[in-house]
Amino acid sequence: MPIITLLTDFGLDDEYVGVMKGVILSVNPSVGIVDITHRINPQDLISTAYLIKSYFKFFPEGTIHIIVVDPGVGSDREIIAAKMCGHIFIAPDNGVLTLLCNECSVLSAVRVENKKYFLRSISRTFHGRDIFAPVGAHLSNGVALTDLGTPVDGHRMTLLNIHKPYISEKGELEGSIISIDRFGNLITDIDSMILEKFCNSDPGKNPGFIIGKHKIKRLVESYASVKPHESLGIIGSRGLLEIAINHGSAAHLFSVVRGDAVQVTLLDNHL
Amino acid sequence: MPIITLLTDFGLDDEYVGVMKGVILSVNPSVGIVDITHRINPQDLISTAYLIKSYFKFFPEGTIHIIVVDPGVGSDREIIAAKMCGHIFIAPDNGVLTLLCNECSVLSAVRVENKKYFLRSISRTFHGRDIFAPVGAHLSNGVALTDLGTPVDGHRMTLLNIHKPYISEKGELEGSIISIDRFGNLITDIDSMILEKFCNSDPGKNPGFIIGKHKIKRLVESYASVKPHESLGIIGSRGLLEIAINHGSAAHLFSVVRGDAVQVTLLDNHL
Amino acid sequence: MPIITLLTDFGLDDEYVGVMKGVILSVNPSVGIVDITHRINPQDLISTAYLIKSYFKFFPEGTIHIIVVDPGVGSDREIIAAKMCGHIFIAPDNGVLTLLCNECSVLSAVRVENKKYFLRSISRTFHGRDIFAPVGAHLSNGVALTDLGTPVDGHRMTLLNIHKPYISEKGELEGSIISIDRFGNLITDIDSMILEKFCNSDPGKNPGFIIGKHKIKRLVESYASVKPHESLGIIGSRGLLEIAINHGSAAHLFSVVRGDAVQVTLLDNHL
Repeated sequence: MPIITLLTDFGLDDEYVGVMKGVILSVNPSVGIVDITHRINPQDLISTAYLIKSYFKFFPEGTIHIIVVDPGVGSDREIIAAKMCGHIFIAPDNGVLTLLCNECSVLSAVRVENKKYFLRSISRTFHGRDIFAPVGAHLSNGVALTDLGTPVDGHRMTLLNIHKPYISEKGELEGSIISIDRFGNLITDIDSMILEKFCNSDPGKNPGFIIGKHKIKRLVESYASVKPHESLGIIGSRGLLEIAINHGSAAHLFSVVRGDAVQVTLLDNHL
Repeated sequence: MPIITLLTDFGLDDEYVGVMKGVILSVNPSVGIVDITHRINPQDLISTAYLIKSYFKFFPEGTIHIIVVDPGVGSDREIIAAKMCGHIFIAPDNGVLTLLCNECSVLSAVRVENKKYFLRSISRTFHGRDIFAPVGAHLSNGVALTDLGTPVDGHRMTLLNIHKPYISEKGELEGSIISIDRFGNLITDIDSMILEKFCNSDPGKNPGFIIGKHKIKRLVESYASVKPHESLGIIGSRGLLEIAINHGSAAHLFSVVRGDAVQVTLLDNHL
Repeated sequence: MPIITLLTDFGLDDEYVGVMKGVILSVNPSVGIVDITHRINPQDLISTAYLIKSYFKFFPEGTIHIIVVDPGVGSDREIIAAKMCGHIFIAPDNGVLTLLCNECSVLSAVRVENKKYFLRSISRTFHGRDIFAPVGAHLSNGVALTDLGTPVDGHRMTLLNIHKPYISEKGELEGSIISIDRFGNLITDIDSMILEKFCNSDPGKNPGFIIGKHKIKRLVESYASVKPHESLGIIGSRGLLEIAINHGSAAHLFSVVRGDAVQVTLLDNHL
C-alpha cells in the first residue's frame, strides 16, 4: 500500500485536512494517509524545514510527503515535486525543503503544472485541496513525476537563510532553540556532530549549557540520568541537543521561547 | 474501499473518537475512516450545518458521513440516515442537515431504529459509540438503508432557522461571520452568487466591506493580491466571502467574534 | 486487517506520533492504526490506567494496543507485552496496566527485549519510535509474543496504588473526580456496581451527590431527564458515575479540578 503523509498549518478545528483526505481517496481509495502534524505555527517555514528533516526517513521508501505551509498560495510562487533520498516531496517552492536539500541531493524535480492532475476547479486560496492532494494521489497511483510538469534544476529551488550554530568570539558554541515540545523540552539547532566536534576541541573538559541566566552542567544519555526536577542536556530523538528537566518542563522553568539563544561552553571536569 | 467520515464535538482529549473507530472496525475491518474535525464547539448545531455542506462533496460518491453533534442524546430525538446527493448521512434529527437539504433533495431517508445493527448494550449518553458507529459500519458492509428503520419523509426532518444574508434598509448586503479559521480569516455566510448578484445591481461600483468600525475596500482573487498586512475580501475555499489579512489575522486585528455582522456596500470605482 | 491502537502523551504539535506510524507502516504496510488520544497529561499514569480500561474492549479481539506514557524512558524500567482479555498490550512496566489487571487475568506476558524487532539504532529518549512501534508492527505481522523476550509473571508487574471509593465514617460513599471531559462532565471513580450496592444499603432512599458546597439531588438515565442547565448524576459511557449539567459544563459551574472529592449520600425520597 503506498503512503501519503500530510504536514500543514491548517490546524484541526476546520474541515481543511479532512477535505484533502477526501480528495486523495477520490483519486486513490487504497492509499494510506498519515498525519504528521497540522499544528505548525501558521506560515512558519523554518519550523517546517526542520520538521521535514526529522520525520521523512522513518517512512518506507517511495512515500509521498505533502507539505502545505504556504503563505504565498494564489501568488505566482511555484509548487515543486521532487525525488530526494528515495522519497517524494510535494511542497510550495518557498524554502521548506532547505534543510532536506542539505542532506539529500535532488534526484529529479518538476514544477507541478499539469492541470490534468488537479481538481477541475482551482481556487486561489486552497491549493492543498485543489492541487497538492490530487497530485499526491495520482503519484501514489503510479503517475510519473515527469508527467506533472517541466523539470526544475534542484539548485534553483528557493532556499531559506537558516541561521546555523557558530563559535562566538568568547569561544562558545552558539545555537538557538528551534522548537519546544509538549513536555517543555527545548530542542536546539545544535546537532550531535557539531556538539561532538566542539567538545573534542578540548578533550579534558565537559560541555555545559547556558540559557539566559541559567546554567545546565550535565550532558547525559537519558532523562533518568539525573534526579527528578534536575536540568540536563541530551541528544534527543531528532539527533539534536535538547535541554530538559527530568519529570518537568524546561520551557516553564527557564521562561524561554522559540528563537532564544543557547550557548555551549566547556567546563573543567572537576567542577 | 468504502469510506466513513466522522464529524463530532467530542474533542481529542478523551477516548470517545477512538472508541467509535474500534466499534466501526469491529463490524467492518476494511473500511477507511476519515476525521473531519472533532473540535466543533460543544453542541453547536449551526456550525455543524455549515461544515457538512463544505466537506461532503470532496469525498467519493457513496461515502458514509457520520455526524454526532447531539445535545439531545438520550432524549426522544430521532436519528436519521439519509441518501442525499449520492452520499449517505447519519445524524441526529436536530437540524444539522438543514443547509444540506437546501442543496440536495432527500433521495431516501429512514429513522434509525433496527437494534440488530446497534451495539448490544445501548447507553443513553454515547449513541456515537452504541448506534451511529455500528450502523455506519453495517451500511459500509452493504446493509440497505431501508433495513435500518421506517422511511421518513425528507420534508419532515427538523430544520434550523438559520439567519440568511439580506438587503438592509440602507441598501447594504448584511451578513454575518459564521466561522473564524486558524489563520484568523473571517468566513461569512455570504456566498459568491449572492455577492455577485448584489454587485451587479450597480455595475459601475465595486464592493467594500464593513466590520464594526473597520472598512475593507478590496475584493481580490488571492491573498497575495494585496501587500502583507493589508486587509481584503475574497471568495474563499468554501465559496463564501471571507475577510482576511494577507500574512496576518483579521480576527485579531478587528477583534471580532463569530456571529458579528458584516456589511457589503457599493463604492465608487475611483475611491 | 490487524489493528494497532496508539495511546500516548506526545500531543499533536510535534512529529512524534506521525513518526511512530511511519515506523509501524515500514514493518507492516497493511496494518490499520487508530489513535486513541495523544493528549494524556504528560506522564499521567493514573489517567492512562483508567483510559486503557475504557477503550480496549470496543476493538476486535487480537488488537494490539501500544501505550507510551513513559516518564522512565531511558532508565532501567522494563517494557511489557501482555495478552489480556483477548487483546495484546505493549506498555512500560510502570503501572499503567494496573486497572486492566483487576479485570483481566494475564494470559501470557513477556519482557520486551529481543532487539531483532527494534529499530537498528535505539535512542534513550524515544522508545515509542524505536521499540514500541516496531515491536507492535511485528506482532501484527504474526510474530509470537514469546519471541519478544523472557516470560514475566503477571503478578510481578508494577502496580499503581490507585485510590478507590470507600465508605466514610459519616456513612457516605467517598470517591473522586478522575477526569473532566470536553463537555465539562465530571467523571468519577465510582462505578455502577459500587453505586448500586451503596444505594441498596437503604432501599427507601435515593442517592444525592456532594461536590464541595454543591448538592446534586438526582440520579437520572439521560442528560435530557432534567431541564437545561440543571445538574444531574448519571452512569456515563464508561460505566462510571458522572456529574453533569444538561446543556452546560459542570466543571465550570462547580469550579472543580481533577482529583477533587465527590460524596454520595442517601436522601429521603420525599426530599
